[in-house]
Amino acid sequence: MSTATTLRVDGDRLMWRLDALAAVGDTGDGGVCRLALTDADREGRDLVTSWMRELGCRVEIDAIGNVVGTWPATATEPPVMMGSHIDTVRTGGRFDGNLGVLAGLEIIETVQESGLTTGRPLAVAFFTDEEGSRFAPDMLGSLVRVGGMTLEEALDIEDARGATVGDELSRIGYAGPVPLPAAAPAAFVELHVEQGPVLERQGVTIGSVTGVQGISWTEWTLTGQSNHAGTTPMSMRHDPAVVAAGMVIAVRQLAHELGDPQVATVGRIDLHPNLVNVVAGRAVLTVDLRNTDETVLLAAEARMAAAIMDLAEAEGVAAVSRSLARFEPVTFSELVAGLVESSATALGHSVCRLPSGAGHDAQMFARVCPSGMVFVPSIGGISHNPAELTDRHDLVAGCDVLLSVVMALCETELPGPWDSPADLAMVTP
Amino acid sequence: MSTATTLRVDGDRLMWRLDALAAVGDTGDGGVCRLALTDADREGRDLVTSWMRELGCRVEIDAIGNVVGTWPATATEPPVMMGSHIDTVRTGGRFDGNLGVLAGLEIIETVQESGLTTGRPLAVAFFTDEEGSRFAPDMLGSLVRVGGMTLEEALDIEDARGATVGDELSRIGYAGPVPLPAAAPAAFVELHVEQGPVLERQGVTIGSVTGVQGISWTEWTLTGQSNHAGTTPMSMRHDPAVVAAGMVIAVRQLAHELGDPQVATVGRIDLHPNLVNVVAGRAVLTVDLRNTDETVLLAAEARMAAAIMDLAEAEGVAAVSRSLARFEPVTFSELVAGLVESSATALGHSVCRLPSGAGHDAQMFARVCPSGMVFVPSIGGISHNPAELTDRHDLVAGCDVLLSVVMALCETELPGPWDSPADLAMVTP
Repeated sequence: MSTATTLRVDGDRLMWRLDALAAVGDTGDGGVCRLALTDADREGRDLVTSWMRELGCRVEIDAIGNVVGTWPATATEPPVMMGSHIDTVRTGGRFDGNLGVLAGLEIIETVQESGLTTGRPLAVAFFTDEEGSRFAPDMLGSLVRVGGMTLEEALDIEDARGATVGDELSRIGYAGPVPLPAAAPAAFVELHVEQGPVLERQGVTIGSVTGVQGISWTEWTLTGQSNHAGTTPMSMRHDPAVVAAGMVIAVRQLAHELGDPQVATVGRIDLHPNLVNVVAGRAVLTVDLRNTDETVLLAAEARMAAAIMDLAEAEGVAAVSRSLARFEPVTFSELVAGLVESSATALGHSVCRLPSGAGHDAQMFARVCPSGMVFVPSIGGISHNPAELTDRHDLVAGCDVLLSVVMALCETELPGPWDSPADLAMVTP
Repeated sequence: MSTATTLRVDGDRLMWRLDALAAVGDTGDGGVCRLALTDADREGRDLVTSWMRELGCRVEIDAIGNVVGTWPATATEPPVMMGSHIDTVRTGGRFDGNLGVLAGLEIIETVQESGLTTGRPLAVAFFTDEEGSRFAPDMLGSLVRVGGMTLEEALDIEDARGATVGDELSRIGYAGPVPLPAAAPAAFVELHVEQGPVLERQGVTIGSVTGVQGISWTEWTLTGQSNHAGTTPMSMRHDPAVVAAGMVIAVRQLAHELGDPQVATVGRIDLHPNLVNVVAGRAVLTVDLRNTDETVLLAAEARMAAAIMDLAEAEGVAAVSRSLARFEPVTFSELVAGLVESSATALGHSVCRLPSGAGHDAQMFARVCPSGMVFVPSIGGISHNPAELTDRHDLVAGCDVLLSVVMALCETELPGPWDSPADLAMVTP
């Protein structure tokens, strides 16, 4: 007979559910497209919800469409919650998000079959529009669930065609009755593929995630003077492309000077009119800065802004910035991070601590309860791509670690529900 | 009674024709849209051709749709030809091209009214698809007329929707019977707005154009590795945006080091996928280099290519180049340039010599006969824009100078028809 220590998940069953869910919105190239609140998302939601019901969970849908399955169904105490998301980007992979949700189902089924009882209820959840590919901002469902944005504001968000979150939730039948913000769970743990190259490069199976990098997205609009590329002497030019190029170089230099874990990226540049024989009149580009240390992130932002203003002034170009997103770094619970490490070690898996460079639903729960994450390696670091892949061995190892962590959290004394900190709301101008 | 020296054009009549032609394809914002071989182009062609006929010219249409009006209609000797183009870019102005054509009409009418006879016939022409906005390359009609491209090749050129030059010429009724290449005129002179800021900045009314800068357009495709902007450490990046930025800076430095008249421009940058939170996987950008000295232009091309390969290697990015266009510098006839100077001075206008940074039909005729250009100032250097503007005083002054130059050329001994040089064909890979 199993004990909490010898308990292991059923890898075949986990893989079977991953395959079954990946068939919904299958893009035919190994990838999946289930953009939030589309018909494909509804079909995926219906499938996962049916699995929750088959396991005897109490299924509750909240007003932003987050779905929570709780077991035992009659439990009233705050559960240890697992979960992630099942929406994808347009060219999504099979594991991003889905793994954390289906691992939760697998763990509940494993515990049910073991006959063990747990000190706290278990819950598995999936959250609306984590990707933000259709409705900005990303992590919308978990954000609203913990009170970081009002429901009313969230329901009014429009996609590129003008459809609102509220209308699309009603259309697909997932505008639920549970009011928001919802009661906090006792703890929250999310299993996720790393979506980066660090674990694979280090040859480590399990990542104990220490937190999520703070993110600063700034859009700069540079306005110079459009001119004929042949007839305008160099001395008379006010070329925003030159300023944009200087920014790209400055962003790279900044990251090198600050060192890991600072990352800095210019991923988008739009010149206007963007023609071979015309000096651009306008350039729009974005700067993505991330760091686990808010103080360093603030300094990086200030240095970039100063560098840009210098470059723009030298070229006689006007520079205007707009914040697209700003999240402070999130630190996950030391208790959870330690449990991930000790569980991985006890199960014979290599483990290391690392921050997450990407945003995840768990960072929202870090505001209201002890929270953490388990990472498993992404082959080649590839994600948001049909080629996204994690070895079956690593998928099952991650699920076993999650099981072990959750079982421990069920028996550990935890702080009561936290008051939401005053600075809970994101900056999303 | 007028003599060749006291003859002046009728400014009101010139302005009236400019206004009447600008009404065809009027974009409502002061601009004009008559893309080559569209219905609007046909309407403009019909109007200008009707004016040629009203003046008693012999109107001849060649197989690429160039239209030449010759006066006297029965003349058989090679004429002194004036002309330019009446097609426009999508957001074109009222003067680019049109001025040179309508000035030619005005000059023929002025000479007719004067009762003077000229030692050579006069001709005014407009050439097909000078702008190249619809069918590449630009200056297509004059290129084919002087034998720089075969008619067959030109007729097969497709626009973005797959319509061919040949089909569109037939559709609008301008596939004429004159075979190509056509007989060279005795001389060719084109009046054009400068499309740059030099004359205005120097406070000079008339530009005597010494030649056309050689043009080198190269497209570079940089292939790195697309990655998550949050999860990919700086040390693992192969970011083509960084190489592209280095290229923009290198292009600017090159121009500064070489000095005037070298100009160098990166006007187009396309990142893929061009998203705030994704390290680009691919960048495509263009480098536009121009110089009046072929030796310097060749050196500039070689230095840019070397710089780009170094930048790409340092970032671990592949760089592949493709030539989009390559024209050697053109030197205009010293005879014509001198006549422009002496005519302007005799008429009391300030004049300076300058090269053209843009391509013009006259550069094609420079291959087969003594050719030159007269520039008048563009306010603010603006062109290819509804705001394109030249003072009426300057328009009329330019037309008077053209008249004076043409009258002189009619009486001057000129070399006979030139053999086409061996290197006549453009490089347009």
